[in-house]
Amino acid sequence: MKKDIEIAQAATVAEINQIAAKIALSPADISPYSHDKAKLPLTTLNKLRQRPLGKLVLVTSINPTPAGEGKSTVTIGLADALNQLDQQAVIALREPSLGPVMGMKGGATGGGYAQVVPMADINLHFTGDMHALTAANNTLAALIDNHLHQGNQLQLDPKRIVWKRALDINDRALRETIIGLGKPANGQMRSDGFDITVASELMAILCLATDLTDLKARLNRILIGYTYDRQPVFVKDLGVAGALTVLLKDALQPNLVQTLEQTPAIIHGGPFANIAHGCNSILATEAALHAGQYAITEAGFGADLGAEKFLDIVTPQLPKAPDVIVVVATVRALKYNGGQALADLDQEDLTALEKGYANLQRHLQNMQKYGIPVVASINRFAQDTTAELDLLQNLISADGVASALTEVFAKGSQGGRDLAKLVMTASQQPANYQRLYQDDQSLTDKMTTIAQEIYGAQGIELTATAQRQLRLLKRQGWTNLPICIAKTQYSFSDQAKLLGAPSGFTLTIRDLIPKLGAGFIVALAGNILTMPGLPQHPAAEKIDIDAQGTITGLF
Amino acid sequence: MKKDIEIAQAATVAEINQIAAKIALSPADISPYSHDKAKLPLTTLNKLRQRPLGKLVLVTSINPTPAGEGKSTVTIGLADALNQLDQQAVIALREPSLGPVMGMKGGATGGGYAQVVPMADINLHFTGDMHALTAANNTLAALIDNHLHQGNQLQLDPKRIVWKRALDINDRALRETIIGLGKPANGQMRSDGFDITVASELMAILCLATDLTDLKARLNRILIGYTYDRQPVFVKDLGVAGALTVLLKDALQPNLVQTLEQTPAIIHGGPFANIAHGCNSILATEAALHAGQYAITEAGFGADLGAEKFLDIVTPQLPKAPDVIVVVATVRALKYNGGQALADLDQEDLTALEKGYANLQRHLQNMQKYGIPVVASINRFAQDTTAELDLLQNLISADGVASALTEVFAKGSQGGRDLAKLVMTASQQPANYQRLYQDDQSLTDKMTTIAQEIYGAQGIELTATAQRQLRLLKRQGWTNLPICIAKTQYSFSDQAKLLGAPSGFTLTIRDLIPKLGAGFIVALAGNILTMPGLPQHPAAEKIDIDAQGTITGLF
Repeated sequence: MKKDIEIAQAATVAEINQIAAKIALSPADISPYSHDKAKLPLTTLNKLRQRPLGKLVLVTSINPTPAGEGKSTVTIGLADALNQLDQQAVIALREPSLGPVMGMKGGATGGGYAQVVPMADINLHFTGDMHALTAANNTLAALIDNHLHQGNQLQLDPKRIVWKRALDINDRALRETIIGLGKPANGQMRSDGFDITVASELMAILCLATDLTDLKARLNRILIGYTYDRQPVFVKDLGVAGALTVLLKDALQPNLVQTLEQTPAIIHGGPFANIAHGCNSILATEAALHAGQYAITEAGFGADLGAEKFLDIVTPQLPKAPDVIVVVATVRALKYNGGQALADLDQEDLTALEKGYANLQRHLQNMQKYGIPVVASINRFAQDTTAELDLLQNLISADGVASALTEVFAKGSQGGRDLAKLVMTASQQPANYQRLYQDDQSLTDKMTTIAQEIYGAQGIELTATAQRQLRLLKRQGWTNLPICIAKTQYSFSDQAKLLGAPSGFTLTIRDLIPKLGAGFIVALAGNILTMPGLPQHPAAEKIDIDAQGTITGLF
Repeated sequence: MKKDIEIAQAATVAEINQIAAKIALSPADISPYSHDKAKLPLTTLNKLRQRPLGKLVLVTSINPTPAGEGKSTVTIGLADALNQLDQQAVIALREPSLGPVMGMKGGATGGGYAQVVPMADINLHFTGDMHALTAANNTLAALIDNHLHQGNQLQLDPKRIVWKRALDINDRALRETIIGLGKPANGQMRSDGFDITVASELMAILCLATDLTDLKARLNRILIGYTYDRQPVFVKDLGVAGALTVLLKDALQPNLVQTLEQTPAIIHGGPFANIAHGCNSILATEAALHAGQYAITEAGFGADLGAEKFLDIVTPQLPKAPDVIVVVATVRALKYNGGQALADLDQEDLTALEKGYANLQRHLQNMQKYGIPVVASINRFAQDTTAELDLLQNLISADGVASALTEVFAKGSQGGRDLAKLVMTASQQPANYQRLYQDDQSLTDKMTTIAQEIYGAQGIELTATAQRQLRLLKRQGWTNLPICIAKTQYSFSDQAKLLGAPSGFTLTIRDLIPKLGAGFIVALAGNILTMPGLPQHPAAEKIDIDAQGTITGLF
């Protein structure tokens, strides 16, 4: 089979004006970036808001494994298949981060015959959103350090600054730094560090902001540190939210591209699904909802992280809740969850599959708790045996859930017809969305609810640090916010190797971090790396471009 | 008078397709970025290369002063005036850096009624060139540190890495840092620092590269450090020039915008004029030369820095040398050079003007050494008296140079007609370009030539550090390259306060830095700050945006 980039390069890519026309937007309604990408200005979003809302389909998955699940691929293939069935479907997806592209990660633009294009551009600079976030993040950091240097009127304690710098690069050497060394003119020496840009609170803010006014208000609320007297200091105290909003004004506009089958895809924002909420921007989902009969979106990592956050953090801010939830699973990943070794996954193993099914089962049950119709998508791999596929379908069916095989990677929309039909049927069923918790519950209650209801924990336990932070949050009145749990994506629990559907464990909360601009409290249940590193042989060593501009080695 | 941003916001901005049409390019020939900006793909540049070459006009100035000279404003106004006289003029300009915009600097997009638009966008993210450079610069840095971390096969000495990180932010706290702190997984601890992006060698490379192949070859030649055995290590040794070229592929394409009077302006690249060569990209100048009857370009800082480098470093790589050189001066700046205090410049002072004229006089004489017709542009300020203007015109005339008054800031093209006519006449005169030195002269000879012929020094003197570097350069055979002297822009000498036309001084060369990718040797004749800081009250405090997206406080 061809490589993803070869398929993408061989695709017939429509002029972006034609894609806009498919959702009844004129060339003047969009802001083109080259001939195959565009931004949707906020005025256009207002125009779209006059149209009725389509059905919202949330694609999520079992816990990710090294075997791969293909959630983005299914999301894209499902939309293509719906369009092929004469439904108007529009995709809302997260945009990829550049850093991992130079490292080792596969693209975040689907794969095989279910991709969004122009694939290379989307994975590289795209329309500059990440770079605008990096610039705004570091402008704020420079303004903070400049404040220290220019007399420190706010009495910010250099040891209690919580705003870090950011780069969209995998750069382990920047995780912990000392800055401000050298002469007095070089400012105040202090310890600092860099996160990857997608881990910046600005990314979460961009994805939750509804317009420029809301964006600026959220920026004003960002906590940047504490004074020597332990009083919180916010961006509003520096008076620079206007400048940061200016830097983010274009990044706030969702991006329009297309799939290989010319389905409109709105790709915008890509926060981490651990220390942030892991979903594309609200504006992108909203635009997709108004632009098509079906808006197909996905949430990061497994349903325990991404979908829970989509449903408890994001949905209350959307014009409507999902009408259908699709949980993506693969035979291979479930066998891995059931104990089969990664190297053996090509061999049939019904016992491991049956055992590993527990992972999918709990995700399905969890999603049903939200009162929304749930279906399963079995993303077929070439090595799956008929016996395995039959067994999995029977297991799902025995739990009263409908499922469909998908082969969109290999076949494009043709491989997604069954799932599309299933989604169409399910979306006619009544949905009665209910959130797992209410914001006015105590922080401990909210964390316990997620841990018990979604993760299968018996309860939570707070470290001394977390308890201290909890007292701070209560003292400051920062409690009436949703919880964003940061834990390993590989397990329901806080231990990466506890596969399947573990229960009875205690979830350890190590720290609580207020993200007041984003509007949630991050509960750290693990050692989350917010700045990745590069592998021994980074992808950068293989990436090349010829004299005509043709890229090779990207994926 | 209205603020620059108010004038820009009130302007009638043509669709970029219409601007492209003015230089006979179709919508398919350009790559739009929104409706008012575009990139010129390399295929389009090849198309343009089939057309004849126009006249090349280089705009330069006296040494900059706090009184302001308005070089970019004159460049823009001159092109507008030529167009108004039915000549087809196209501008080639440097693109602004974002960092200073948040600090205190005025825009780099002209002023008053001689501006390029969309002014705010150009001063902010524009088409992402700076961000691509930042990403490529820091990807290389991360790859270097990753190499150290992953076994250091090349035996790079962490204390001898010369590649720094970069951000397009004014951030004094990042000038000197320690990175790689913390656990072993965080890589090798070492001292490092950040430059502002425009000071990165990548910016100089982007501005000198002629196509993707040349770009990649230059990237391969970048010196990143030395081994423990003091052997040089290059990007080619890391094998990542392909990936860096991919990151810069779009940034290599010049940007097309327009003036307030809808003159096509190609804005691309903006290297420092001290530690780099201070001119827009070769591709932009070349495109402008083929697109119009007149290509109007400018060089950074005064003629001693920017123009010298344009003529000795850039011109040999252009399809033709300048046909006319315009030296911009103002009465105020010359009076300042003649000793009048900044606060008193509104008062007539013919003595100071006559004394300060020495600065302009030497720049005019210097430019004449290149064998190209030279004219002077007196950029009129409202406070200039008739007696002052008469005196200045007489002084210039007495030196056998033609001059014209310009009032483009206040009047747009109407204020540039005299200069335009002067330039048209001068461009008919025979030009016989000759470089000041040849690359095969010794490094000392080349530096001495510039110091004596352009600066008026009696000679040069190398510090012990510079002498050591000179021996290294000779040993490595890195001598057959042009010289790029980095010194204060405020004086002909290496002392900022030595105004007018000092002579008899000795230029002290403190260090010699090989920029092998850019293809020149930087001779440091001063303490050049490559990462600016923010002032006590940064512009960011005043910049704002309303709910409709209208920006205020930018300039």
